[in-house]
Amino acid sequence: MESNNVVLLDFSGSSFGMRLRIALALKGIKYEAKEENLSDKSPLLLEMNPVHKKIPILIHNGKPICESLNILEYIDEVWHEKCPLLPSDPYQRSQARFWANYIDNKIYSTGRRVWSGKGEDQEEAKKEFIEIFKTLEGELGNKTYFGGDNLGFVDVALVPFTSWFYSYETCANFSIEAECRKLVVWQNCMENERVSKSLPHPHKIYDFVLELKHKLGLA
Amino acid sequence: MESNNVVLLDFSGSSFGMRLRIALALKGIKYEAKEENLSDKSPLLLEMNPVHKKIPILIHNGKPICESLNILEYIDEVWHEKCPLLPSDPYQRSQARFWANYIDNKIYSTGRRVWSGKGEDQEEAKKEFIEIFKTLEGELGNKTYFGGDNLGFVDVALVPFTSWFYSYETCANFSIEAECRKLVVWQNCMENERVSKSLPHPHKIYDFVLELKHKLGLA
Repeated sequence: MESNNVVLLDFSGSSFGMRLRIALALKGIKYEAKEENLSDKSPLLLEMNPVHKKIPILIHNGKPICESLNILEYIDEVWHEKCPLLPSDPYQRSQARFWANYIDNKIYSTGRRVWSGKGEDQEEAKKEFIEIFKTLEGELGNKTYFGGDNLGFVDVALVPFTSWFYSYETCANFSIEAECRKLVVWQNCMENERVSKSLPHPHKIYDFVLELKHKLGLA
Repeated sequence: MESNNVVLLDFSGSSFGMRLRIALALKGIKYEAKEENLSDKSPLLLEMNPVHKKIPILIHNGKPICESLNILEYIDEVWHEKCPLLPSDPYQRSQARFWANYIDNKIYSTGRRVWSGKGEDQEEAKKEFIEIFKTLEGELGNKTYFGGDNLGFVDVALVPFTSWFYSYETCANFSIEAECRKLVVWQNCMENERVSKSLPHPHKIYDFVLELKHKLGLA
């Protein structure tokens, strides 16, 4: 039987790392988590991702895979039997990849402007942020999950950002919940045990955001 | 037998569109190409890609797929038999996706600063541009193609940008060839008939760049 040595180089506040903690938990894969200090990255991190020098990195039997959506596809391909994330139909797969990329291209950068911005730029970012989630609600439609009746690739790509909602809302004084009712229903559905356990408490993220704002001279 | 109605909404100067013209040609898929006017986008384009409103878009039996790497994977999955682009091994697949994403995240934006920039920013962009291709040469190593003995996903993702080399070099007065010898050898290998036919003449791209610079008030 093939041995599976799985190591995840990660940082607990990273939404990108959370995706992989969720996927590994859903699929019941045992792994060793190594928390990185992003201000003083380990030699292992720099060796395993010399191009981007970023977490998360999955090391499977000594070989590194980088970039969270790429790792998510890898995990889904290698351990496909339990809780498949991407559908088997090529068109449905293309749609899932499209929306996961949409999340990657929009939420992190706009979210950063929401928690770190000031004045007009922050107000603009809040509007854009709500628009992004309205667009995602449009894609969700009347389904329970983005994946349909079962959670899938897009759900796992998106749900980590909900652990940041409290920080976005507190830093920028607005309510995502009040604007995006459908998203809240979806979020409640996502709170099955294995997903919740892989997400940090929103207050822990907020502490991290305050620390970061302090470091950046924004607080 | 399943009917295949394939339409490509495209713009001839787009490196992202070229990827798909190459893939469709390599796989021998007949399709209708519809050239878009990017200053006056068609109602079909806006209907088929309401989120990003961008070419290229592949419409397969009436259903749209957007984002060039996503479309490339879709084409490879639906028409897998002839000239497979992604390898079958999950680790090799993850590496191909990693490098294709690297190309997407780096070349277009840095290339734009090379052809449109001025002074110090342009000099900086030229340096970064060469560094990007040096990194890609490192990945190519001693292989004929990024895909190994046969051209693959990364080769198709990258080769369209070579049709822009003349424009980059002429606008910014430098030589990519002089700095990146390995890349030139690779580029020559790529010039098999079906790839060449899918790429516009470098002078046509240069005319387009001059027109664009004029429109943007840079010429």
